[in-house]
Amino acid sequence: MKKKTMSNSIYKVAIVGATGFTGSELARILCQHPHIEIKYITSESHEGKKFSDLHPQFLGILDKTLASSQVIKDDDMDVIFLALPHGISMDFVKTLASHKAKIIDLSGDFRLKSPEVYEAWYQKQHVFPEGFKNAVYGLPELYVDNIKESRLIANPGCYPTASILSLAPLMANGLIESDSVIIDAKSGLTGAGIKASDTTHFSNVNENFKAYGIGTHRHTVEIEEQLTALGQSDAMVQFTPHLLPVDRGILVTAYTKPKGQMDQEKLEKIYRDFYADKPFVRVREKAPGIKDVRGSHYCDVFPYWDRRTQRIISIAAIDNLLKGAASQAVHNMNLMLGLEEKTGLTQIPLRP
Amino acid sequence: MKKKTMSNSIYKVAIVGATGFTGSELARILCQHPHIEIKYITSESHEGKKFSDLHPQFLGILDKTLASSQVIKDDDMDVIFLALPHGISMDFVKTLASHKAKIIDLSGDFRLKSPEVYEAWYQKQHVFPEGFKNAVYGLPELYVDNIKESRLIANPGCYPTASILSLAPLMANGLIESDSVIIDAKSGLTGAGIKASDTTHFSNVNENFKAYGIGTHRHTVEIEEQLTALGQSDAMVQFTPHLLPVDRGILVTAYTKPKGQMDQEKLEKIYRDFYADKPFVRVREKAPGIKDVRGSHYCDVFPYWDRRTQRIISIAAIDNLLKGAASQAVHNMNLMLGLEEKTGLTQIPLRP
Amino acid sequence: MKKKTMSNSIYKVAIVGATGFTGSELARILCQHPHIEIKYITSESHEGKKFSDLHPQFLGILDKTLASSQVIKDDDMDVIFLALPHGISMDFVKTLASHKAKIIDLSGDFRLKSPEVYEAWYQKQHVFPEGFKNAVYGLPELYVDNIKESRLIANPGCYPTASILSLAPLMANGLIESDSVIIDAKSGLTGAGIKASDTTHFSNVNENFKAYGIGTHRHTVEIEEQLTALGQSDAMVQFTPHLLPVDRGILVTAYTKPKGQMDQEKLEKIYRDFYADKPFVRVREKAPGIKDVRGSHYCDVFPYWDRRTQRIISIAAIDNLLKGAASQAVHNMNLMLGLEEKTGLTQIPLRP
Amino acid sequence: MKKKTMSNSIYKVAIVGATGFTGSELARILCQHPHIEIKYITSESHEGKKFSDLHPQFLGILDKTLASSQVIKDDDMDVIFLALPHGISMDFVKTLASHKAKIIDLSGDFRLKSPEVYEAWYQKQHVFPEGFKNAVYGLPELYVDNIKESRLIANPGCYPTASILSLAPLMANGLIESDSVIIDAKSGLTGAGIKASDTTHFSNVNENFKAYGIGTHRHTVEIEEQLTALGQSDAMVQFTPHLLPVDRGILVTAYTKPKGQMDQEKLEKIYRDFYADKPFVRVREKAPGIKDVRGSHYCDVFPYWDRRTQRIISIAAIDNLLKGAASQAVHNMNLMLGLEEKTGLTQIPLRP
Repeated sequence: MKKKTMSNSIYKVAIVGATGFTGSELARILCQHPHIEIKYITSESHEGKKFSDLHPQFLGILDKTLASSQVIKDDDMDVIFLALPHGISMDFVKTLASHKAKIIDLSGDFRLKSPEVYEAWYQKQHVFPEGFKNAVYGLPELYVDNIKESRLIANPGCYPTASILSLAPLMANGLIESDSVIIDAKSGLTGAGIKASDTTHFSNVNENFKAYGIGTHRHTVEIEEQLTALGQSDAMVQFTPHLLPVDRGILVTAYTKPKGQMDQEKLEKIYRDFYADKPFVRVREKAPGIKDVRGSHYCDVFPYWDRRTQRIISIAAIDNLLKGAASQAVHNMNLMLGLEEKTGLTQIPLRP
Repeated sequence: MKKKTMSNSIYKVAIVGATGFTGSELARILCQHPHIEIKYITSESHEGKKFSDLHPQFLGILDKTLASSQVIKDDDMDVIFLALPHGISMDFVKTLASHKAKIIDLSGDFRLKSPEVYEAWYQKQHVFPEGFKNAVYGLPELYVDNIKESRLIANPGCYPTASILSLAPLMANGLIESDSVIIDAKSGLTGAGIKASDTTHFSNVNENFKAYGIGTHRHTVEIEEQLTALGQSDAMVQFTPHLLPVDRGILVTAYTKPKGQMDQEKLEKIYRDFYADKPFVRVREKAPGIKDVRGSHYCDVFPYWDRRTQRIISIAAIDNLLKGAASQAVHNMNLMLGLEEKTGLTQIPLRP
Repeated sequence: MKKKTMSNSIYKVAIVGATGFTGSELARILCQHPHIEIKYITSESHEGKKFSDLHPQFLGILDKTLASSQVIKDDDMDVIFLALPHGISMDFVKTLASHKAKIIDLSGDFRLKSPEVYEAWYQKQHVFPEGFKNAVYGLPELYVDNIKESRLIANPGCYPTASILSLAPLMANGLIESDSVIIDAKSGLTGAGIKASDTTHFSNVNENFKAYGIGTHRHTVEIEEQLTALGQSDAMVQFTPHLLPVDRGILVTAYTKPKGQMDQEKLEKIYRDFYADKPFVRVREKAPGIKDVRGSHYCDVFPYWDRRTQRIISIAAIDNLLKGAASQAVHNMNLMLGLEEKTGLTQIPLRP
Repeated sequence: MKKKTMSNSIYKVAIVGATGFTGSELARILCQHPHIEIKYITSESHEGKKFSDLHPQFLGILDKTLASSQVIKDDDMDVIFLALPHGISMDFVKTLASHKAKIIDLSGDFRLKSPEVYEAWYQKQHVFPEGFKNAVYGLPELYVDNIKESRLIANPGCYPTASILSLAPLMANGLIESDSVIIDAKSGLTGAGIKASDTTHFSNVNENFKAYGIGTHRHTVEIEEQLTALGQSDAMVQFTPHLLPVDRGILVTAYTKPKGQMDQEKLEKIYRDFYADKPFVRVREKAPGIKDVRGSHYCDVFPYWDRRTQRIISIAAIDNLLKGAASQAVHNMNLMLGLEEKTGLTQIPLRP
């Protein structure tokens, strides 16, 4: 295998939005990236505090003072990460439209096909509809070439990342009935964000488990659009998220009906072929647990053929904050900057 | 409301198998039952020790000395609970066949329709095939009359209890395509039993989540048989269990396709009508969490009609050790003894 | 054993403050109490809602409409439980001073010896200093006779209950250096209350453990006052609370120096004698875990003599919401009403 | 600051003992170390399997075949890590005594001052008493120079690491009464090892908390010996470990009496001065939680002066598998090989 010549450049990046989990995870990964200098981390509500005041694990590692996001507009930046809630992020994208920096938006504001679909599912008017035509859906396993050329990445949602990767080999090969897709998904609590609420109160999560957003979760349409694009026929997805009493991790269990003959050997080959040159997707021989990927950029997938019921069950496990958010953003950054895609993404899962 | 005349009798019961979780939960409930005296608790491996040596929470409450199961054979007992592993239990049922006591078997040994089906799914020869014709499947919401007349109860499995109750109103009314049933189930760790193993090691469970027994779990056939009986047509069930990092609780998320027109109002009415006189099934207006029923005999169900996908999603939550095992056994006992069915089952869910 | 004649009376009680954990736990226990009718549950912020809307585990069990606390003032009540935050509770006690009902205050407002001490540690002016002279500290193991005669109970704090019971036999016998007391305490998260905050956010609690309130926690003075009263000499207590990633439970590990000779046998005898007629304190032969008492009114204590270091280590475990709050309040109520003290307090610990 | 010239050498290491948590954590860290090649990982019971068969998180990262430990004896190795239980490890040290490789023993076999003390506390005869005179206690914050010269490192225990670092600045400055030391310690479950047992069963750990080994834990003497050496007077330590329902992390809360005058400012200065050039000890201004250091080599310490009680409370938090075991071993290796001490130890704590 020919190795790419490693660049010695240092790129300047800004993280807009320091408070949340994706902000702190971006910082964690970028701190250890050999070609990156974190020039700014911004927070309007905590401006002037140290980053490690908000996230004490960074004490002595990243004590940088939090800036207002105003500063990045007037400075030379190579990449700007927007770690903001949806609905807020689009304002920044609009403002930064003419900035030379590449933008990686971790919110849901530019993931869908059009402002109309956005407004239907997010129930909010979009302030920058022009952005959609330039935005690239940042799932490197599917869109590596587009990502390399892009200047605006819509970083995928956590559930969609796991859901799409669990089914992509089947969809791309036209092997399943596209209206048969049922995705039963389970996420750790960090998916609900850092804000204190009844939902995130320990006593409502610990020793508990429940479904939420049944039939209405916004990630449904994101998954449908991507599966439709892959399969070149309309996908209809039943998506049910559940809340796990753990910090990190998403596991999706997807049920589909094949169009023709199937067997376990054939099924596995389809997955191995599809992910042959994708370094962060591991095709497993046993059902993975979320702890097998925790703290890493890996997505573990496991396809199973149930001969009795004639259904395919495909499972995928990711760390929702990493492959489902922060490390995926860095993966996109590597591609956009022409770096080797694995650069700075060598974290080994933390288990136990 | 006319109250049933309460009996003043005290019935003598034995719990065979003191070591496991179902044994200790049976003891906990029976200790507080107004018409029960626990005459024996048996354990071959711990004979002579106190029950509270094994389960220290019972210190000063139930310090009874553990006996060999030999003693119960020669004594007058009203009810014998078998809290034993499958494959072991059938030996006891055979031996006790001519005993006057009513028997409630918490194992899987007599739950299926025939010894042949048992042998196919449990991969073990059955030593007492004659038992099947007398055994009654002890799900009170479906078989109350048969249970009252029975002398041998096959107490349902934990997953089947939740799965069947999530779908019974639909099946009994012939409303769904019986080959469309997908049950994505999640259980707390106590479902794996008290024995120390890699599966039950804290570091493999905590902060983890994974599927197991995909396509092959024995509860699949138990669910299929019961749904088939309800619907009077062959049910084909896709059943996928997962392991939750909690002690107690099962949540099932069942996906089905209706045969004809459906809407949310109609769906709810079907559930409320079906469970109108079932005191332990609560039809909820929101998705329940497992903590809403923890420590109690309740089963909370929630049916949801997804107009977009034209699917019914039905959710059920139980405490796997109670409605899924021990309290269900006591419920059966009440019915067999002619007691009011709620006697001794008034535990309120422990939350938080 | 001669059983006390059980009263057949039904007493009317009100729970003021329905939102929090102590409110819902009081309701859970009182629902099953044979001599109690819960006449009112009040909430100013949720007036008109059902109790089970706030606490869904009570659906079908206690759906009572929440009232304003105004109603209880004009009605005949036998006992009023105040499940309110400190600082709010004293207003109610003042208002209800001439009401015929017995009052059990679960807040910290009347636990200390004087309004002056209160104001020093709670940094808040007391609105009803007259209340102190009538208030009885409601720890039944120490003050059973005073409680029976009282009309205002200051229900002890959760940490003080465990701390005092771990040391009472030593203090009451004058056996330890009263300035040598170090109490290292650990509590489940429900001790922090039901309000959503950074402190109660799942991701700050789960897989975490830390000390808080070092040297300044208000329960310090409550413990000191009670130990001083027991030992008849000034106790100086080092009290350090920590937050456990569990819902319920307090474990205290107390370190003391004996005044004279000690050995394990003597130590155990002191504890067994002291708690001989106290039905809810269990002297254990091994170190208890918090799960051994979860969901029950028990306090498990374990005294250990370390000959090498010449120190006594005494451990106590309780359920902070029960023996540390709600069931202790009901215990006090039983004594005040002349009922057998164990009435309605027969919950067996929920384990696993 | 003069930076050491970084070596470009690659050193060959072996990990003896692949099964346990320290084995897999060593592998995780050494995989990412720029100057290390993991030449062998050994396991007698799993010889021939892949490392990733035992630890699936390593799939595609470290699939190396497990060897018998025989192979390392006949090969050129630079460093051999012994990740074996105590009592087994000393056999290997004896066998490897004449091997040219440097040895880092993660067991307790050579941590104490003499074979006699070992035999008293470990109740086992030592097979290689000669080893003691060469063994260096591998706590880099105390013994950096000795470690650099050593060929046999006794890697410290997890509790002793946190305990000693919480008190070292006080002991080394002769500031405390050396018989006043009380250490109340709490550890995550991985400290109990990977073997399935009642102790490690999820349902005994989850939602539970208890003390164990009271007055008798082997780490007591290890802590005492090191504090004695630091303070040059006999230290007598009260050490009580407790089991936390988390995977990783140790928090110690240490109570001591100062010899003379103390105040908070002075106390903090003592700690900051002592750890000024120790890159992995962070003196905190607030009490740290174990999650602040999880997945990293940091030890966070927090000293608190309680003027009221005239006691010092010093808290330390570490990841028991890293600073308490594997990363400490790598830190020692760096020193022994003449590498910059931080090499390969740049992991940022994983939070949330």
